[in-house]
Amino acid sequence: MIKVAINGYGTIGKRVADAVAAQPDMEVVGVSKTKPSAEAYVARQRGYPLYIAEMSKRQAFEDAGLEIAGDVTDMIKHADVVVDATPGGIGEKNKKLYELYGVKAIWQGGEDHEVAGFSFCSSCNYNEAKNRQFVRVVSCNTTGLCRIIQAMDERYGVGRVRATMVRRGSDPGEIKKGPVDAIVLNPVKVPSHHGPDVQTVLPQIDITTMAMIVPTTFMHMHALQMDLKSDATKEEILAIIEKHPRMGLVRASTGITSTAELREYAQDLGRPRADLYESAIFADSIGLVGRELFLFQAIHQEADVVVENVDAIRAMMNVVDEAAVSIEMTNRALGFTAL
Amino acid sequence: MIKVAINGYGTIGKRVADAVAAQPDMEVVGVSKTKPSAEAYVARQRGYPLYIAEMSKRQAFEDAGLEIAGDVTDMIKHADVVVDATPGGIGEKNKKLYELYGVKAIWQGGEDHEVAGFSFCSSCNYNEAKNRQFVRVVSCNTTGLCRIIQAMDERYGVGRVRATMVRRGSDPGEIKKGPVDAIVLNPVKVPSHHGPDVQTVLPQIDITTMAMIVPTTFMHMHALQMDLKSDATKEEILAIIEKHPRMGLVRASTGITSTAELREYAQDLGRPRADLYESAIFADSIGLVGRELFLFQAIHQEADVVVENVDAIRAMMNVVDEAAVSIEMTNRALGFTAL
Amino acid sequence: MIKVAINGYGTIGKRVADAVAAQPDMEVVGVSKTKPSAEAYVARQRGYPLYIAEMSKRQAFEDAGLEIAGDVTDMIKHADVVVDATPGGIGEKNKKLYELYGVKAIWQGGEDHEVAGFSFCSSCNYNEAKNRQFVRVVSCNTTGLCRIIQAMDERYGVGRVRATMVRRGSDPGEIKKGPVDAIVLNPVKVPSHHGPDVQTVLPQIDITTMAMIVPTTFMHMHALQMDLKSDATKEEILAIIEKHPRMGLVRASTGITSTAELREYAQDLGRPRADLYESAIFADSIGLVGRELFLFQAIHQEADVVVENVDAIRAMMNVVDEAAVSIEMTNRALGFTAL
Amino acid sequence: MIKVAINGYGTIGKRVADAVAAQPDMEVVGVSKTKPSAEAYVARQRGYPLYIAEMSKRQAFEDAGLEIAGDVTDMIKHADVVVDATPGGIGEKNKKLYELYGVKAIWQGGEDHEVAGFSFCSSCNYNEAKNRQFVRVVSCNTTGLCRIIQAMDERYGVGRVRATMVRRGSDPGEIKKGPVDAIVLNPVKVPSHHGPDVQTVLPQIDITTMAMIVPTTFMHMHALQMDLKSDATKEEILAIIEKHPRMGLVRASTGITSTAELREYAQDLGRPRADLYESAIFADSIGLVGRELFLFQAIHQEADVVVENVDAIRAMMNVVDEAAVSIEMTNRALGFTAL
Ligand SMILES: NC(=O)c1ccc[n+]([C@@H]2O[C@H](COP(=O)([O-])OP(=O)(O)OC[C@H]3O[C@@H](n4cnc5c(N)ncnc54)[C@H](O)[C@@H]3O)[C@@H](O)[C@H]2O)c1
Ligand SMILES: NC(=O)c1ccc[n+]([C@@H]2O[C@H](COP(=O)([O-])OP(=O)(O)OC[C@H]3O[C@@H](n4cnc5c(N)ncnc54)[C@H](O)[C@@H]3O)[C@@H](O)[C@H]2O)c1
Ligand SMILES: NC(=O)c1ccc[n+]([C@@H]2O[C@H](COP(=O)([O-])OP(=O)(O)OC[C@H]3O[C@@H](n4cnc5c(N)ncnc54)[C@H](O)[C@@H]3O)[C@@H](O)[C@H]2O)c1
Ligand SMILES: NC(=O)c1ccc[n+]([C@@H]2O[C@H](COP(=O)([O-])OP(=O)(O)OC[C@H]3O[C@@H](n4cnc5c(N)ncnc54)[C@H](O)[C@@H]3O)[C@@H](O)[C@H]2O)c1
Repeated sequence: MIKVAINGYGTIGKRVADAVAAQPDMEVVGVSKTKPSAEAYVARQRGYPLYIAEMSKRQAFEDAGLEIAGDVTDMIKHADVVVDATPGGIGEKNKKLYELYGVKAIWQGGEDHEVAGFSFCSSCNYNEAKNRQFVRVVSCNTTGLCRIIQAMDERYGVGRVRATMVRRGSDPGEIKKGPVDAIVLNPVKVPSHHGPDVQTVLPQIDITTMAMIVPTTFMHMHALQMDLKSDATKEEILAIIEKHPRMGLVRASTGITSTAELREYAQDLGRPRADLYESAIFADSIGLVGRELFLFQAIHQEADVVVENVDAIRAMMNVVDEAAVSIEMTNRALGFTAL
Repeated sequence: MIKVAINGYGTIGKRVADAVAAQPDMEVVGVSKTKPSAEAYVARQRGYPLYIAEMSKRQAFEDAGLEIAGDVTDMIKHADVVVDATPGGIGEKNKKLYELYGVKAIWQGGEDHEVAGFSFCSSCNYNEAKNRQFVRVVSCNTTGLCRIIQAMDERYGVGRVRATMVRRGSDPGEIKKGPVDAIVLNPVKVPSHHGPDVQTVLPQIDITTMAMIVPTTFMHMHALQMDLKSDATKEEILAIIEKHPRMGLVRASTGITSTAELREYAQDLGRPRADLYESAIFADSIGLVGRELFLFQAIHQEADVVVENVDAIRAMMNVVDEAAVSIEMTNRALGFTAL
Repeated sequence: MIKVAINGYGTIGKRVADAVAAQPDMEVVGVSKTKPSAEAYVARQRGYPLYIAEMSKRQAFEDAGLEIAGDVTDMIKHADVVVDATPGGIGEKNKKLYELYGVKAIWQGGEDHEVAGFSFCSSCNYNEAKNRQFVRVVSCNTTGLCRIIQAMDERYGVGRVRATMVRRGSDPGEIKKGPVDAIVLNPVKVPSHHGPDVQTVLPQIDITTMAMIVPTTFMHMHALQMDLKSDATKEEILAIIEKHPRMGLVRASTGITSTAELREYAQDLGRPRADLYESAIFADSIGLVGRELFLFQAIHQEADVVVENVDAIRAMMNVVDEAAVSIEMTNRALGFTAL
Repeated sequence: MIKVAINGYGTIGKRVADAVAAQPDMEVVGVSKTKPSAEAYVARQRGYPLYIAEMSKRQAFEDAGLEIAGDVTDMIKHADVVVDATPGGIGEKNKKLYELYGVKAIWQGGEDHEVAGFSFCSSCNYNEAKNRQFVRVVSCNTTGLCRIIQAMDERYGVGRVRATMVRRGSDPGEIKKGPVDAIVLNPVKVPSHHGPDVQTVLPQIDITTMAMIVPTTFMHMHALQMDLKSDATKEEILAIIEKHPRMGLVRASTGITSTAELREYAQDLGRPRADLYESAIFADSIGLVGRELFLFQAIHQEADVVVENVDAIRAMMNVVDEAAVSIEMTNRALGFTAL
């Protein structure tokens, strides 16, 4: 059993913990929090040993009826791999600790590529992650872009990619962040950082991205345009997506045209936390004008990277040789089949 | 086994179907839809026989790969009780059909009291529903008001109740309804219809309500003020709520101060569809100024009436004598304990 | 003085009325409403004779203290040109009336090109509108696209244009329309109708568009990519925009990065109704990758077409020979200089 | 001419500056900013001398083409009265400076009562402000409450007041603050601080308030209930509001039922920045149940306190003896008549 600790039990961390706990070859040895909150009670309900960032907060946790197993350093000592899901920028500061204890660590997309020196996406570069001490799972948006671009590139070759990302303003449980009634360019400058981030995984791709933020909480929407290098048909592309273990098709017959309806559908299907691990590609949006491909895909910011973290653990521990096998194991353990 | 049909498999209907299916003494004999959509696939996934309102639409369903068991009339013939969860105003038109086939029927709060001639809330008037052919489960807001008012009235006696209801603009899956950036008085006139609606269940209560709509999707918020007729303490009131099978406390130690964080918590706890069947009363908000009680409660519009429908079925079939017993059966079958 | 009647005094109609009233060579002979409302009081405050669509509503207007000058037919008799700003689809039905009375008419973008047989944008095809009886001013989005594309095409030649339009969900004063918390693909299919609509004005352009709707009320945002046919520099492009009478630059030094801040700025500058008649192009977003041009522009849906209607009137009456002269007259009368 | 400096040229400060500049007996001697931004250009357009909080930022202003007159200390030396409209909490730190230079100062509602030792509302306690060095204009919500309560108390006597305040999440130009899709209790505890704040102006009133925040940008909505001490009729109350110089009636015939439609109406009427200086009381909402009064009022958070600041200046300078006279002067200079 691979022993996994989750440093930072928030939006991403709590999902990674559940995904790890569901795997046959992994166990959660601990999760960490900075202060008592609803999520700390959730950790207790799940039976995850609770560690804290600062021992000075111990009393506050105990007053809230929460038992503490130790501090983050204690937690790390029990782990083969630490999944660092602390807020962007904090993770980098934890690197020294991981080096000191010689533990493997995975960072999330809020950290720069340089922190780990290697950026990961299961279906793109699983093999290169083998035996590494440090890996960074790319951001939710970058993961969504890499999946479809790699799949198209493998089959047809991909020339230039132009993408506009319309991002959710806050996660569903965040109440401080806006905007309330605004479309915010973020950044104003073109291109946005998402293009270069894709290139940390797929360096060969010519990609330019533009990004904005809108007052929604669930899923980013990508408007994608790609020049393919060889002829394609809509049917082929539908088939590639359908077979992909991390992409799913939103079919016209469901009548779904929005992120809100997708959430409702995920919830109705019984997905825990309404999580959509797969890129949700709108079947009807797939259009080919000559060799130019257009499509819309919705990316569940809280969920898509979760399964990638699980695969990264296997690659780093070098316990499963092939990406496809790890992906299949991850999905099966979660009872997950793409839409 | 009580045979239950769900006429109108939408926001309320799909939840009632799942709640009924979970009961040991009930089964779902069919659900009805007007057109193929995501929800029709959900019905299929659950294994509920699918009936349609108009046979002329059969082809559209079959083209979408959905098998049809018959029309609504066929469905009714198999049922002891029909839960009518069609949109407000449509339910009334179905009454003739239920009379014709001599089937029991339950309407929702979108219909007027007069359609059924009896308005229901499990913890208030279960006994009076016994053996009735027709019952109306009051609206989500009215259910939320009745629960707490009845509990306070039973214990302390309740004088005047003044409530402001801040209502969600649309259900999470609805994309056409707004508002986007407005607080809408609905109605402008004071009092709103919610007060008289409470009186269909609790006629003795002096209640005046004011209501507005805001751009949110999940839960109404009630700001409640009640004059109690005898002395009370905050501890007593907390205890009453804690013991109530359909009210729950949002504790200060969770840090939850909003509807969004409540949804996140419900989701994290594994509640299907993030459903909060109970009124969520903010423990910290409970304030007593003399014999005046103040509190905030959040009401999950999609969920609170669902469990009431299940109890109403038992009362109408007269299979369980006491309200408390039915409520406990309903809750247990759903694996539900209040917050 | 050109006599102008406004049929449909709503979001667009009330702005066109004020813009017409401000012109030295035009006067408002009447505006029409279907029912008494806040806007009817505004018409009275402005001194515009008020006509009504149906005489049966006369009493309702009089009860509200509003004097009625007659019905729409009466209004038309006084007009040289009718600006039809009724809701999309209604305008087409009014065509017979305009033909019967031999009056010139302008429709808005909610009607199909075929209704007028000619689609108009001041800076693109003013001359072709001369002496026509019927003209359609293209929609707010199409107007915004045509202005920049034509300017780039004139100078550099434009190859393919790829645009993603992120549209406001409702106008600021609309409270029924959503969405509340969703990104809605509208349409799901790619390309959207905006591309072909641009081609009604600029048939030579190879344009593909994708469109979605978000929960905001003020301005659409366009993410634009264009292949230029000859070399360009950012400085040149900034200069072209700066000199254009209907495009303005949002400068980095203002710190403005969103539609909301733009509205605040327009309001602070004293623009009536915070109206931004010009396309608001973010200076910092202008990016050139080889001969590929990228930029973001915000389009005030309620305002940009207003000034186009004024120019269309002059072209149809053939009173001003050159587009540039009419545009300058329109702008000056409104005291308008682009950002 | 009273020399007025505005320390903090933001949402409130820029409005106070314009209101002061419009008065016949006052002039703006300077406004201050911390960094160059859109508002700095607006100050330049208006011709207000621009001062800066820290001279180290001078270069940044000059790079943006903005001329600087000096620092805040320089500005204060030119002023008889400083209106401090810096963000809540900053104002308190400026007190020493005002004491040092012996200048009169007015703070806003974001500061505690104790900072000035006197809290002000024109129609409640103008006389008590006379000759004071320091005054605090109460917050937008408190101003709205004080106006109606004082008017009812003067005429009928007011017993207990119970109010629920549904507050806008962010100002229209703010893009960082949320919430996006949540009703947030702020504070969870009942009563909120608004009741005690009213008592700093009207100490005799028995008031309890509850407050929440919703995802809107324009106007708070108050649901008000008051026990009157003598009999009243709806007609009398309508007449009192109609005659009040700082309260206005939203009439049923306008069809307005929301904050968004009110903004549209204010804009259409030509109000600068769509500012509603008056409390907007919905005529149709006024309800009397015995001696209990119910009503809804919308409070434009950015505007209602602006006119109060102007009156406070006159009272502190003791140049106008009667509140009614100053209020009338303020209103007339702004060309403002209540709705
Ligand atoms: N939320 C998303 O949509 C999303 C998507 C993809 C990637 N990411 C990335 O994942 C990472 C985590 O983001 P998140 O949204 O889950 O954040 P979050 O704020 O929801 O959770 C972070 C958690 O870390 C804890 N924490 C903070 N400081 C800590 C410390 N010093 N030690 C231990 N724990 C600490 C907090 O208590 C919190 O529980 C970031 O790099 C982010 O960029 C987020
Ligand atoms: N949504 C809520 O928050 C809520 C809360 C409490 C009570 N209610 C009440 O519950 C009832 C249902 O509301 P909902 O929100 O679930 O509506 P909904 O629109 O989500 O679902 C209604 C369903 O009925 C189906 N339908 C429509 N016409 C039909 C017909 N003639 N025959 C059969 N099926 C038909 C539709 O296809 C849809 O699936 C209404 O009375 C409503 O007022 C709703
Ligand atoms: N709102 C926008 O953002 C926008 C932008 C560009 C173009 N347009 C187009 O402008 C047109 C008008 O749109 P709008 O947003 O101003 O609509 P609106 O609903 O705001 O106003 C329409 C007005 O027409 C009146 N009306 C309705 N039926 C009428 C009839 N039969 N006779 C006379 N008057 C009638 C209504 O009372 C209302 O005052 C549409 O074609 C629309 O597509 C709108
Ligand atoms: N915005 C509202 O709705 C509202 C309503 C009523 C009262 N108020 C109160 O008015 C005050 C100002 O609020 P606001 O919303 O206008 O804030 P704001 O943030 O819009 O504006 C504050 C301005 O002060 C400037 N500033 C910051 N620090 C400064 C310093 N040290 N010296 C000089 N200038 C400085 C900022 O640059 C900014 O321009 C607060 O007390 C607030 O509580 C605000």
